[in-house]
Amino acid sequence: MELCEKTLDSKNIFEGKILNITLDDVELPDGSHSKREVVNHPGGVAVLALDGENNIYFVRQFRYPYKEVVFELPAGKLEKGSTPLENGKRELLEEIGAEGYSYISLGQVYPSPGYTSEIIYLYACRIKDFKQQQLDDGEFLNVEKLPFSKAVEMVLNNQIPDSKTQIAILKAAALLNSGKI
Amino acid sequence: MELCEKTLDSKNIFEGKILNITLDDVELPDGSHSKREVVNHPGGVAVLALDGENNIYFVRQFRYPYKEVVFELPAGKLEKGSTPLENGKRELLEEIGAEGYSYISLGQVYPSPGYTSEIIYLYACRIKDFKQQQLDDGEFLNVEKLPFSKAVEMVLNNQIPDSKTQIAILKAAALLNSGKI
Repeated sequence: MELCEKTLDSKNIFEGKILNITLDDVELPDGSHSKREVVNHPGGVAVLALDGENNIYFVRQFRYPYKEVVFELPAGKLEKGSTPLENGKRELLEEIGAEGYSYISLGQVYPSPGYTSEIIYLYACRIKDFKQQQLDDGEFLNVEKLPFSKAVEMVLNNQIPDSKTQIAILKAAALLNSGKI
Repeated sequence: MELCEKTLDSKNIFEGKILNITLDDVELPDGSHSKREVVNHPGGVAVLALDGENNIYFVRQFRYPYKEVVFELPAGKLEKGSTPLENGKRELLEEIGAEGYSYISLGQVYPSPGYTSEIIYLYACRIKDFKQQQLDDGEFLNVEKLPFSKAVEMVLNNQIPDSKTQIAILKAAALLNSGKI
């Protein structure tokens, strides 16, 4: 059977600053009908930036949905009119105050494909220079660096729950081991 | 500065079958006010199940937010009244028709901590026995198995975007290498 769902109707539930929620009627592969609750998201980017001593730079931020401080790579939403890589460079400068070079892609992440359209683009880079952190209004975070090997150990010990951060660290570790970073 | 956001007000925007959307007013660490768009989600579980020849079992499903077929580990939402592990065992039986043993935790995933409260619990297991697949009404998917080494290669070549699937494969690979699975 062909795996496809056809949109019959789409109702706009909420247009927020970040999220746009729709409730769609769909036709399933067997011709029956169902509903789909969809979070339409502009997409995101995250950057794993390494200094000359192979430290990775992280941010600690209060993440309201969990009501806790979460440990993550510097990251942000995609802004219209610029590429994922340009967005990544901007977020690294804003949140860490760092300029990178030798950027490589670590692929893309579909965080939760059952309900959100978000795609997170991942990059790794080397840090060239440190400047002034440039946080947005209303953005509060602490920067922390960790040796690469310690970050890998924390992911494997289940101490870093954030999806993009786990994936970027484990992929970069495999690439470092094979000499590709 | 203490990284904390205090809820001032919470408005229910949408109560769906899966998602519950709220728009909250919060007080930021510096005393200023802001809004938070939150997707409240019951949580999920995914299982990396290995047969005697180290094949992993996957599902291909049409994922409506991306309008494409996505390659994932068997997974599902958490149902009330049962543990994440019990939910994982149920999903493995329903989607793959397999019964597992030697379950171990591969940790938890926060798929996108900026806006969703979802926690995905990850497990790995060995497959004991194959039975009849028991799909829910309206659930359409194809099962596919891949050698473990091929799955790792696909993640590293950016051919598997799903977050839980990337993380479970890369963590299980590290544990297999160190003899822990």
